[in-house]
Amino acid sequence: MQIKILGRGDLEQVLDLPGVIEGVREAYRLKAAGETAVWPLVAHHFEDRGAVMDIRSGAVMGRTQVHGLKMLNNFPGNRAQGLPPFSGMLMVFDSQTGLPLGVMDAAYVTCMRTGAAGAVAAAALAREDADTLTVLGAGKQALFQIAAALTVLPGIRRVYVADQLDKDNERAFAAACRDRLRGSFGLEAGDTAILPAGELSEAVGQSDIVITVTPSRAPVIRREWVRPGTHFSCIGADMEGKEELDPELFRSARVFADDLDQCIRVGELELPVKQGVIAREQVAGEIGQVLSGALPGRTDRDQITIFDATGLALLDLITGKQAIDAAAARGVGLTADI
Amino acid sequence: MQIKILGRGDLEQVLDLPGVIEGVREAYRLKAAGETAVWPLVAHHFEDRGAVMDIRSGAVMGRTQVHGLKMLNNFPGNRAQGLPPFSGMLMVFDSQTGLPLGVMDAAYVTCMRTGAAGAVAAAALAREDADTLTVLGAGKQALFQIAAALTVLPGIRRVYVADQLDKDNERAFAAACRDRLRGSFGLEAGDTAILPAGELSEAVGQSDIVITVTPSRAPVIRREWVRPGTHFSCIGADMEGKEELDPELFRSARVFADDLDQCIRVGELELPVKQGVIAREQVAGEIGQVLSGALPGRTDRDQITIFDATGLALLDLITGKQAIDAAAARGVGLTADI
Repeated sequence: MQIKILGRGDLEQVLDLPGVIEGVREAYRLKAAGETAVWPLVAHHFEDRGAVMDIRSGAVMGRTQVHGLKMLNNFPGNRAQGLPPFSGMLMVFDSQTGLPLGVMDAAYVTCMRTGAAGAVAAAALAREDADTLTVLGAGKQALFQIAAALTVLPGIRRVYVADQLDKDNERAFAAACRDRLRGSFGLEAGDTAILPAGELSEAVGQSDIVITVTPSRAPVIRREWVRPGTHFSCIGADMEGKEELDPELFRSARVFADDLDQCIRVGELELPVKQGVIAREQVAGEIGQVLSGALPGRTDRDQITIFDATGLALLDLITGKQAIDAAAARGVGLTADI
Repeated sequence: MQIKILGRGDLEQVLDLPGVIEGVREAYRLKAAGETAVWPLVAHHFEDRGAVMDIRSGAVMGRTQVHGLKMLNNFPGNRAQGLPPFSGMLMVFDSQTGLPLGVMDAAYVTCMRTGAAGAVAAAALAREDADTLTVLGAGKQALFQIAAALTVLPGIRRVYVADQLDKDNERAFAAACRDRLRGSFGLEAGDTAILPAGELSEAVGQSDIVITVTPSRAPVIRREWVRPGTHFSCIGADMEGKEELDPELFRSARVFADDLDQCIRVGELELPVKQGVIAREQVAGEIGQVLSGALPGRTDRDQITIFDATGLALLDLITGKQAIDAAAARGVGLTADI
């Protein structure tokens, strides 16, 4: 049997953001319809080297019919040796035969589908007239969040980028962002301003949408900065102990999870639930229920809405299957006899 | 970064049984020395199609320094479509950097290391003058068991092959076995007789070593057939409810596991422990403890010894690493930029 092998260069050729965004919407909707399986997360800390690996696996039924897994490795010590700290592989299998379909670099797929996830939820939950976005975090993932947000939210006129630990990076990121959007995604920011956040409290206070993508382990965004009607897509917190928002923001917010159990265990919801600020029963539901029309999203113009994303293998699998099909159609990537 | 992609044909070129056997011994010894990690098994039944998938993962420290996982799919319905029912992929990562090293067909690696496991334990636990072997099961795995046993136990003069469900297959398998050993492993059986078992009770009654490799869910080998001093390597039972031996055989036997917890959960030990025939504390230990000299194997010529193997990702990882290194040295297989 034959499988596709796709490296990052191949994936950049065959994946496009609008397609990935549509796939992510479909994965969430299938989850809400009970047409997916999320299998137990396996994680390991290599304590002597400060490294982490995790294995996320699951299945997408419906028309897609794939299952598989993603192993991600985060070895921060690699930087000192000039090696990428973050790497991984995604394997996709045909759920009708169990046969492997393809194997690919997981880092790029993860970035693409994570950008799509933050944006899809913002489009579903933010106010319709939202025109200002703050992205907290100016690392690798921030560009994908901005690109996906501008793709699904054409009304955005101003984007603030914030790096609370490195204001030089914040300015450099904002200055280069327009060119990078064009180079990496063929995306024209047009007359949308992309600015360094400067004073974060002010940027947040002017924003309709805030996307958080830092590895923070303490709240960064404070309750009192936030104006009524703001939407948050919380992407960074995906392991025990991580948080980016003041837990008080959860007290009166309408909150959706990508996977409720997983968010309460390791997401932005973990600490507010442990602290009793919000109870499990007060979480409105999962984002797929909004996308499929089973639950209303925002119910009030002044409501705070929060989407907590911890990452689901489903998104990788559906994106990986798109990449395999597109690569086969366009003759991209290696084909191996297995 | 670059990874090796190895299909079955590549693996047949680069793996040889003596090397795999040595790797399996090393993996078991490293496990006994606490130099390995076995991560939680993830399994799923696709109930509507009678199919199963499992993900086994772990790490081998010591000099080897690899981690990774294997996904195996068993889709019996494939046979009707002329597709292989059993397939899977193995991924190996460098544990010093987290970077992927290679991806390969898991079915052949599994067959090779499973053959090696049964034989390594037989060599460690059987009587030194063992000359007769029965292999219960005449499917795909039986050939690997016989090949590995003949490699590590040159004193074997007679091999009985048993297929209790299909005596025609039993005869055909035995008749073709010598040629298949030569063709697949370059192994000359010489004057060792390879015979159909015929009446299983008689074959077992003449045997010093019995290796079981069927998917049976009820005992096949009865206590009263077995003569003193027989060794059993139990390979087939690796999921809840599977068993091949009369539980009574465990009552006075010296028993070793590949991984004690996993064997009690899903191995040949599962049902005897549940039935109270043997208690967890009566299991002598793990095979790695014998191979590393920490525990004696057989302590009496007339003792029944039993090795219960459920399969460890460690064996696949160490075998996979051998394959990647040999393929790189010999220019076999594809190399992909990831």
